[in-house]
Amino acid sequence: MSVSAAPIDVESLRDRFRRAAEAAAAAGVDALLVSPGSDLRYLLGAGGSSFERLTCLVLPAAGSAAEPALVVPKLEHPGYAGVPTDELGVHVATWVDGEDPYRLVADLLKGAPKSVAVTDMMPALHTLGLRDALPDARQSLAGPVLRELRMRKDVGEIEALRKAGAAIDRVHARMGEWLRPGRTEAEVGADIAAAIVEEGHTVAEFVIVGSGPNGASPHHGVSDRVIEKGDVVVVDIGGPVPEGYNSDSTRTYSVGTPGFGDVVDTYGVLKAAQQAAVDAAGPGVTAEAVDAAARDVIADAGFGEFFVHRTGHGIGLDVHEDPYIVSGNDLVLETGMAFSIEPGIYLPGRWGARIEDIVVVGERGAERLNNQPHDLVVLPS
Amino acid sequence: MSVSAAPIDVESLRDRFRRAAEAAAAAGVDALLVSPGSDLRYLLGAGGSSFERLTCLVLPAAGSAAEPALVVPKLEHPGYAGVPTDELGVHVATWVDGEDPYRLVADLLKGAPKSVAVTDMMPALHTLGLRDALPDARQSLAGPVLRELRMRKDVGEIEALRKAGAAIDRVHARMGEWLRPGRTEAEVGADIAAAIVEEGHTVAEFVIVGSGPNGASPHHGVSDRVIEKGDVVVVDIGGPVPEGYNSDSTRTYSVGTPGFGDVVDTYGVLKAAQQAAVDAAGPGVTAEAVDAAARDVIADAGFGEFFVHRTGHGIGLDVHEDPYIVSGNDLVLETGMAFSIEPGIYLPGRWGARIEDIVVVGERGAERLNNQPHDLVVLPS
Repeated sequence: MSVSAAPIDVESLRDRFRRAAEAAAAAGVDALLVSPGSDLRYLLGAGGSSFERLTCLVLPAAGSAAEPALVVPKLEHPGYAGVPTDELGVHVATWVDGEDPYRLVADLLKGAPKSVAVTDMMPALHTLGLRDALPDARQSLAGPVLRELRMRKDVGEIEALRKAGAAIDRVHARMGEWLRPGRTEAEVGADIAAAIVEEGHTVAEFVIVGSGPNGASPHHGVSDRVIEKGDVVVVDIGGPVPEGYNSDSTRTYSVGTPGFGDVVDTYGVLKAAQQAAVDAAGPGVTAEAVDAAARDVIADAGFGEFFVHRTGHGIGLDVHEDPYIVSGNDLVLETGMAFSIEPGIYLPGRWGARIEDIVVVGERGAERLNNQPHDLVVLPS
Repeated sequence: MSVSAAPIDVESLRDRFRRAAEAAAAAGVDALLVSPGSDLRYLLGAGGSSFERLTCLVLPAAGSAAEPALVVPKLEHPGYAGVPTDELGVHVATWVDGEDPYRLVADLLKGAPKSVAVTDMMPALHTLGLRDALPDARQSLAGPVLRELRMRKDVGEIEALRKAGAAIDRVHARMGEWLRPGRTEAEVGADIAAAIVEEGHTVAEFVIVGSGPNGASPHHGVSDRVIEKGDVVVVDIGGPVPEGYNSDSTRTYSVGTPGFGDVVDTYGVLKAAQQAAVDAAGPGVTAEAVDAAARDVIADAGFGEFFVHRTGHGIGLDVHEDPYIVSGNDLVLETGMAFSIEPGIYLPGRWGARIEDIVVVGERGAERLNNQPHDLVVLPS
């Protein structure tokens, strides 16, 4: 598979390299070992492919004698043609089947590092291979180091998130084309997936169509359940735009008049809770305070036990990343942080509802990147 | 996302459980720790989703005092509704945000295991979490244990591979609908991807359209290069059918008469090499002997340096799995093993070609599961 490089300017990448190397030094880590995925995309502008052969960016901590290097199978090297390795001062070290890429990483690190941090998503195949090649190095996770960079979005990243938000809004605006009684969740989901791509995403990363009682299971995907008149339907959808940044937005629909008498009032509680959390979010506020703002509204109305997940998650090159909007997270929000605000109320065996927007923290508060109406959307039945 | 359970009968799963526990014991491992992916799908009939929250099948070795258990976030538990945990004797241990799932795994293992094997694809996030919760347990990879089971396909698995092979053959048979001069590789690739799904795959897992000089880069994906009259084009495509088993087949096309005078003769060498490897494969033959059979034909014709990868890879729930058909692999092939035979000749800057079939080893030799013509397919220009 090819590895498309995002159009990130070299200066930005160079700045990220410098800050990552400094963050590694501050964390007491000798080097970051970054395998394909969003961390690699953040640092190189290309996320790479993840096959069984090791690809690994070796990024020594600031002050180290070692140099940055990209270890990559010779076969897969052409896929990195768009990466400005020379400008970034990254030595490219290719390897072929039969060679030991873990040994190659160890040699590039020089000496005997005491501590290396590996990408959170690195497969055990590579994590244990590196463990054996670097027996004196304690392994830790690179996530806590890199999240300090990644959760503070720059202007280009916010633009990409804004573009993703507008694209998924266009899909929600078209829901009436697909969501009708007599169709299965899977049929509706397939149409939504096609529209996610049509509206500018590279792939439909996830499609949840939770109709009737399935809406009360927050991580339901799609099923062969036939949608009925009166169903309340939770639609949670998203994916990446070509820049690599993700959309993620949920709206709740009613197929005709809701089939339960408690839907309208309960939904009203949820809408107020979501608004309260958006209002609460801003620079200087803790993540857990935003969670509490939504949770308090729902609990005060007597539905506390039916809001069974955190209020939100950060978003960027990953759909789920820091900062998590959850009780116990006393992280102080800053401008440039982007995350979901998505309270839900789930009534087992009956129905469920969730409202989800991505917001970005600005100087005067949180700005929504999703702007479809927040009301229960009643579609024709 | 939902987790669809494959229609595997409970007896087959019970047998896999038993054999995996015995293989673990034979490998000196106290337990297998299996996170979402193909290993989990093999053992449970459901592959699960891989989010940041730990899901892990704990499968103690035969003779252990511990019981099999599935550690799963409470939120994601409904997705495993189709898994016959009771019949398999698997205790389900759910956890919620704020609890320590790694501690939960350690408690379920009882005592202090000395050795655990983790899924090859387990993210470092979980591998290191388990390392810290089980400080006395040496971690190794579960792949070498489970591959002894997974690379010997049963009748149901071979049926699924056969179905996948026929599905991708139908896509290749339609190539003339899309592959024409004036279109970009990406445009052709998008049409192929849609057809892969139309013909019965759940997703287009990979689409390589390597036209002209791009065909000489074996891991090229698609690009904005416009296909020209006379181009030789390598098309390598595949994906999973609903049972989870994958297709993977390559054919090489010429858009009108080939633009280079050496194409026809060189392609003839490649075709003979691919046939030689298929003829060589069978029970009792080593994997490396199959590789050598193809490589010798190509080397004897003077193209040895242009065949830059192994001859093939096993296939099943993963696109790439054991057995690898590569020099140095003295594994003796057995009936029920399935793998690709895909030699290629790559002439940098000019053109490339590859022919790939999946074969399954039967009692009298290797049977091809891909049966589109093996000639250079000349399409109208």
